[in-house]
Amino acid sequence: MIKVGIVGGTGYTGVELLRLLAQHPQVQLQAITSRKEDGMPVAEMFPSLRGRVNLAFSSPEKADLTACNVVFFATPHGVAMAQAPTLLAAGVKIIDLAADFRLRDPAQFEKWYGMAHTCPEILQEAAYGLVELNREAIRNARVVGNPGCYPTTIQLGFSPLLKANLVDASHLIADCASGVSGAGRKAEVGFLFSEASDNFKAYGVGKHRHTPETVQQLSRLTDDPVALTFTPHLVPMIRGMHSTLYARLKPGMEQISDADLQKLFEDAYRNEPFIDVLPFGSMPDTRSTRAANVLRLAVHRPRGEGMPSDTVIVLVVQDNLLKGASGQAVQCMNVMFGLEENSGLQQLPVLP
Amino acid sequence: MIKVGIVGGTGYTGVELLRLLAQHPQVQLQAITSRKEDGMPVAEMFPSLRGRVNLAFSSPEKADLTACNVVFFATPHGVAMAQAPTLLAAGVKIIDLAADFRLRDPAQFEKWYGMAHTCPEILQEAAYGLVELNREAIRNARVVGNPGCYPTTIQLGFSPLLKANLVDASHLIADCASGVSGAGRKAEVGFLFSEASDNFKAYGVGKHRHTPETVQQLSRLTDDPVALTFTPHLVPMIRGMHSTLYARLKPGMEQISDADLQKLFEDAYRNEPFIDVLPFGSMPDTRSTRAANVLRLAVHRPRGEGMPSDTVIVLVVQDNLLKGASGQAVQCMNVMFGLEENSGLQQLPVLP
Amino acid sequence: MIKVGIVGGTGYTGVELLRLLAQHPQVQLQAITSRKEDGMPVAEMFPSLRGRVNLAFSSPEKADLTACNVVFFATPHGVAMAQAPTLLAAGVKIIDLAADFRLRDPAQFEKWYGMAHTCPEILQEAAYGLVELNREAIRNARVVGNPGCYPTTIQLGFSPLLKANLVDASHLIADCASGVSGAGRKAEVGFLFSEASDNFKAYGVGKHRHTPETVQQLSRLTDDPVALTFTPHLVPMIRGMHSTLYARLKPGMEQISDADLQKLFEDAYRNEPFIDVLPFGSMPDTRSTRAANVLRLAVHRPRGEGMPSDTVIVLVVQDNLLKGASGQAVQCMNVMFGLEENSGLQQLPVLP
Amino acid sequence: MIKVGIVGGTGYTGVELLRLLAQHPQVQLQAITSRKEDGMPVAEMFPSLRGRVNLAFSSPEKADLTACNVVFFATPHGVAMAQAPTLLAAGVKIIDLAADFRLRDPAQFEKWYGMAHTCPEILQEAAYGLVELNREAIRNARVVGNPGCYPTTIQLGFSPLLKANLVDASHLIADCASGVSGAGRKAEVGFLFSEASDNFKAYGVGKHRHTPETVQQLSRLTDDPVALTFTPHLVPMIRGMHSTLYARLKPGMEQISDADLQKLFEDAYRNEPFIDVLPFGSMPDTRSTRAANVLRLAVHRPRGEGMPSDTVIVLVVQDNLLKGASGQAVQCMNVMFGLEENSGLQQLPVLP
Repeated sequence: MIKVGIVGGTGYTGVELLRLLAQHPQVQLQAITSRKEDGMPVAEMFPSLRGRVNLAFSSPEKADLTACNVVFFATPHGVAMAQAPTLLAAGVKIIDLAADFRLRDPAQFEKWYGMAHTCPEILQEAAYGLVELNREAIRNARVVGNPGCYPTTIQLGFSPLLKANLVDASHLIADCASGVSGAGRKAEVGFLFSEASDNFKAYGVGKHRHTPETVQQLSRLTDDPVALTFTPHLVPMIRGMHSTLYARLKPGMEQISDADLQKLFEDAYRNEPFIDVLPFGSMPDTRSTRAANVLRLAVHRPRGEGMPSDTVIVLVVQDNLLKGASGQAVQCMNVMFGLEENSGLQQLPVLP
Repeated sequence: MIKVGIVGGTGYTGVELLRLLAQHPQVQLQAITSRKEDGMPVAEMFPSLRGRVNLAFSSPEKADLTACNVVFFATPHGVAMAQAPTLLAAGVKIIDLAADFRLRDPAQFEKWYGMAHTCPEILQEAAYGLVELNREAIRNARVVGNPGCYPTTIQLGFSPLLKANLVDASHLIADCASGVSGAGRKAEVGFLFSEASDNFKAYGVGKHRHTPETVQQLSRLTDDPVALTFTPHLVPMIRGMHSTLYARLKPGMEQISDADLQKLFEDAYRNEPFIDVLPFGSMPDTRSTRAANVLRLAVHRPRGEGMPSDTVIVLVVQDNLLKGASGQAVQCMNVMFGLEENSGLQQLPVLP
Repeated sequence: MIKVGIVGGTGYTGVELLRLLAQHPQVQLQAITSRKEDGMPVAEMFPSLRGRVNLAFSSPEKADLTACNVVFFATPHGVAMAQAPTLLAAGVKIIDLAADFRLRDPAQFEKWYGMAHTCPEILQEAAYGLVELNREAIRNARVVGNPGCYPTTIQLGFSPLLKANLVDASHLIADCASGVSGAGRKAEVGFLFSEASDNFKAYGVGKHRHTPETVQQLSRLTDDPVALTFTPHLVPMIRGMHSTLYARLKPGMEQISDADLQKLFEDAYRNEPFIDVLPFGSMPDTRSTRAANVLRLAVHRPRGEGMPSDTVIVLVVQDNLLKGASGQAVQCMNVMFGLEENSGLQQLPVLP
Repeated sequence: MIKVGIVGGTGYTGVELLRLLAQHPQVQLQAITSRKEDGMPVAEMFPSLRGRVNLAFSSPEKADLTACNVVFFATPHGVAMAQAPTLLAAGVKIIDLAADFRLRDPAQFEKWYGMAHTCPEILQEAAYGLVELNREAIRNARVVGNPGCYPTTIQLGFSPLLKANLVDASHLIADCASGVSGAGRKAEVGFLFSEASDNFKAYGVGKHRHTPETVQQLSRLTDDPVALTFTPHLVPMIRGMHSTLYARLKPGMEQISDADLQKLFEDAYRNEPFIDVLPFGSMPDTRSTRAANVLRLAVHRPRGEGMPSDTVIVLVVQDNLLKGASGQAVQCMNVMFGLEENSGLQQLPVLP
C-alpha cells in the first residue's frame, strides 16, 4: 500500500483527491493537513465522505508527512515549494496541483505568480505531469508539477497537429469555457450562485497564467515559434471544461483530407486509456466526462461557401477536477509508483 | 395607437413580444393567432401575463389581421412568406422574426432552409432589420426580416473593424455561446433541464444557418471577400448571448493603438441608444443585458510574450430574446412607424 | 418629485431598489451611500445600470440625507435604528428593509437579533409595511419596517383562513423555499455557485428569525393563540420564493366547500393590485412573478383515500426581491406619499 | 457471474442501471432492449459509456431475455407485467422499476394507473423492494416491485416513529422536492431547461400516485389508520430528493427527549449500510448523496416561543436515481442473489 498525505484539502481539488484515493485499491490515506481546520473530521466538512473517510484534518506540525510515500499539494501557489526540500530529503515524492513546478523558468514563474521561486534546483528536476505527452519523465520523477486544467485540453488538442507540422503555430487560438468549481472553494462575490448562474462571461483575457504554461509546453512539440490567443470563459455549471481550438493549416497543407486528419488523432491516442477520440465532426458534451478521468476530443474542418478553407477546429472536453486536476494527479502517482495507470481511476462518468 | 397582430406567439419570442408590446405606450394588441391554441387565454399559457394581457389565442381564420397596422411573425420559417402577399395587399406592414426575409438570394434561402421561397419579389423589397446598420431602409420598409440573434452580435462587433478596413475579412472567427431559450419552446430531449444543465457543448459547427446570413451582411460593409468560421455553443442559462470575435489586423495595421481601436467603436455607436461600448479591456456579463434591449461590447488586444501581436478580440453580449429577437423587432417597428426609437424599450436589465 | 436616498445599496435589495426607483415617474434619486465604495459610480458595480443611473456611492458623511423626503435602508440589521432619530428630526421618512422596525417588542428584538434596540420609542410608532394587511397605518407612518420575505407569503396565505376563524391557529406549518439571492450579496462559501447549485437543503430549522415576526403579525389576525412550524429551504435559483402552507380546519369546519374556500380568498384580495388569487387547485410557478411586484396564491384541499380530510394547503409565490423586499418597500413609499399604489411598479414578470 | 438483462434503458434509470451494472464485479450485462433503438450502440446514445459498455440496444424479439438470471424493467408502467409470466416460467427473476408490482391491490393499481393488472397472481407473490423494511421477503422473491423515489424517503423517515407508536399516523405530512431527472427523459415542454430552471413549483398536489403506495406501506408499520398529505415540488437540479416530514407526537408523548428521539433512529438503522442517521438537528444537502446509493436523514424538534411543542420533523435526502431508483434496484438484486448487499454500490458521492 502506498502511504499518501494531502496538504490542503479543504478545496475542491482536495475533496476530489479524497474521493479518488479513498477508493484506490493500493492507497492508504495517511494524513491530511489544514492549519485552520486542525482536528475537524474531514467528513464533517464534506458529508459526502461520512462513514468512508475517517481522517481528521491536522495542523502541518502534527502530521508526519515524512512517513508518507507521496504527498499531494492541493494548496495555493507557493506552499509546495516551501515544503519540497524537506520532503524530498526524507524520500517522499511530491505531486503539486498548484503551479510551483509547472513553469521551467524561475523568472517566468516570478513574473506570472508574483513571488520568487524558492527552490529553482528542484524546479529543474521536476516533471510536467501531462502523462500522455511526458510519461517517461514522470515515471522517473521525484517531483511532478500537475498541469493546469486549460493547458491539459489545449496541449492534447493541438499536439497531433503541431507534431505533424500541419498548422501555423504562431496564431493558435484557444477559446475555452470552465465550470465554476475551477475557481476553487473561496468565498468571493463573483462566484456566488446569484452572480455566476444564468450568466456567461469571459475573464482574464490576455492575462491568464495558463498562457505561459501552455506556450512553454506547446513549444516542446514543434520547432516553429508558438504564439497563442487564449480566452477563458466562465460557465454556470459546477464541473466541466470545454475548449474550442482553432488553427490554420499551413499553406500547402489544405489538401489534407478529413480522414487523414482524423487518423492523425486516432494514431496519436490509440493506446491512451484516458483519451477518447470521437468520430470526425462530433460535438462532445462536457457532461460525458463528469466525475471521471477522461478527456474526449473531436476534430472539425468547416468548409463551404463563406467559410475559410484552411481552418481546423478541435473540440476538447474534460472534467476540470478530474483529468484537469485531481484525476490527472492520481494518474501521475500511478505512473510514478509503477501501478496500473488506470488503478483507482475507472469510475464511469455520471450522466445525467 | 398602432394596432398590432402577432402570428404564432406560443414560443419564447412570442411571449417576449407580448411582454414588450403590452407595456408599449403607443401599441394596441389586436390579435394573436395560434391554430392549436384557438380560444385559450394567453395568460393561461403564460401566467406571468395574468391580469395584464386579456387576449386569447385565435385561429388565423378568425383573427382579422388585415385590420392591423403591423403583424409580427413569431413562427417557424416559411409561415411569414405564405401570408405576406395578403397582408401587404391590405396595407399591413410585416416584421418576421424567422428567416423568410433575411437572405437576399432565394436560391441561398432554399439551400439553407430546405424550402423554395414563395414570394421572391417581396424578398427583394424587404429590409434587413438591424437598425444600427440599416436604419434608413427599415424606415421605409413594408417588410422587415428581423436578424438572427448570433448575426446581430457578430455584425455589430465586426462592423467598425471592417468599415475601417483594418482586419483580414477572409479569416473572421466568431466563437459564440447562447442560453437555451434560443432553441425555442419545443419539446426536444436535448433541451430538457436534465440534459442541458450542468453541461456545455458546441453545436452546428460548420452547419449553422446563421453563417450565410452573417456573411451576406458583413459583405456589405467591406469590399474584401468575407469568410467566417462560426462556432455556436449551448450554455446552461435561460437567456443571454455572448460572442467572442477574433480578427487579425491586416499587415501594416499592427501599429494601431488601443486608444484608436477604442475610439473607432465609440465613434461608431456614439448615438445609438441600445449599443453600449464598454471601456477598453472590459469583460461584459451576459446578465448585464438580461431582459433589456441593449447590446454591450468591449474591445481587447492581448499582446505580450507568447501571444500573437496582430489579433483583435471583440466581446459582445446581449439578451438573445431582446436585442437578439423581440426587442430588436419592436425597435424596427418604432423606426417603421416614426416613433421614438426607444419607445416601450426602456426597461432596465434585471440583475441579479 | 420625491427625493429619495438609499443607505447601503451594494446588495441585491439595493440594486433592485435602484432598478425600480430609476424607472419610477415620481422619484428623483438623490443619494446612495456606502462607506466602503465612496466615489464609485453605481453603474461600475452594477453594469446593468450603465447609462441610466449616474449616481456614485458616497460615504454617509458626504451624502446629505436630511435633504431627502424618504430614505430607504438596504443595510444589515441595526443601521437604520442608529440613523433614524436624526432623519426623523429633519422630517425625513424612513423605510427599513432590515429588521429594526419589524418586531414590536424591543426585548424580542434583542433576543433574536443579538443587539439592544436603540430607539424603542420610534419602534412603537413604526408601521409594519405589509400594505395589504396594514394600509392605513402605513399611510400615516413616518417609519416603516418592511416585512421579511417569508413572513409576507405566510401572512398573506394564512390571513383569510385566520380571519374567518376556520383553522387551528396553534399548529400552522409553513414549508418554504427561497432562491439564493435571499441570502444577500455576501461572500460566503455556502452560497457559492459550486455549493448551492444542483443542491437542495433546509436551513435554520427551528431557529429562523422570521418565526417571531410572523407569529407576532398572525396573532393580530385572530384571537386564538398562534404557533407556527416554519421550515425554510434553499433552492438553486436566483430569485423566487415558494411557500407551501398547511393548516387544519377546526372541528366542525370540515364541511366547508372548495368553492367557499376559494371565495374567501378572492373576496379578501379582490381589490389588491399586487395579489393574484389563482383558480382553486392551481400550482403557481415562482417564475410567474420574476422581477415583478406580484404575489400569486392558490388554495388546495387534498382529500381522498389515504389522505386527511381536514387539511387546507395554500401555495404562495413571489419574487423575494420584489414583493418580498424592494418592490414592497416602493409600494410602501407610494402609500406613504399618497401616490398611486402601483406607480413605478407595473413591470410585467420576465418569463422565461 | 449473474447474467443481467435490461428492458427499456433509454431513460435515466436505464443509463444509471448501466453505469452501476457495468461496474458491478459479479454481473455480466447480457442484453438491453429498446424496440425503437434496435441496433444502436448504447454508447452512442450515452457517450459517458464509450469504451466501457459495448452492448447495442436490441429489439425485444432478438434479445434472449430468458437466458438471463434477472431482468430489470426500466420501462413505463405496464410493460413488466406483460412480460413477467414468460420470464418467470423460464426461471428468470424480475425487478421492476415501474409501478406494476408496488400496489398490493389490483383494484387500486387500476384506479391510479388507469389500466387493469394483467397478472394479479404474480402481484400477490411480488415483494416490495425497500430492503431496509422488507429484507427477508426480497431475499426469497422471484419478483420485486422497486419502490417509488418519494415513498422510499417517506417510509424510511416515518418508520421509526410509527413503529414506536409515537405519532399521530392519521395526519402525516410529507413536503418533498425532487430534481428534474425524476420526470424522466421524455420530451415535454414543462421539463425544458428554459421552463424548469430558475423556478420552483409544487405539482400533483393531492393527486400523486406515490400517495397510495406510501400509505399502503406505512400501514404495515402501525395498527393505527394512516393518512398522509403529500406535496411534491420540482427543484431546478438534475438529481436529488429532499423530504421534509412532519408528524405530531401523540398526546402524552411530548415528554420524549431529543436524545431518545435520536436514539430511536440510530437504533433502527445501526446496521444498515446505506442509511446514514446524521446528528440531531442536522440539515443534510441532497448533494451529499449525489450519484451514490445512500440515504441520509436527520431528526428535528423545533420548540420555543411561538412554535408548537408537539411537532417532529425528519429531513431525508437521497439521489432519486440511486437509492430512489436504480441503486435500490441493484441492492435488491444483491439481496435476491445472496451477494454482499453493497456489492457494486460502494461509489462515494460526487461533491461538488
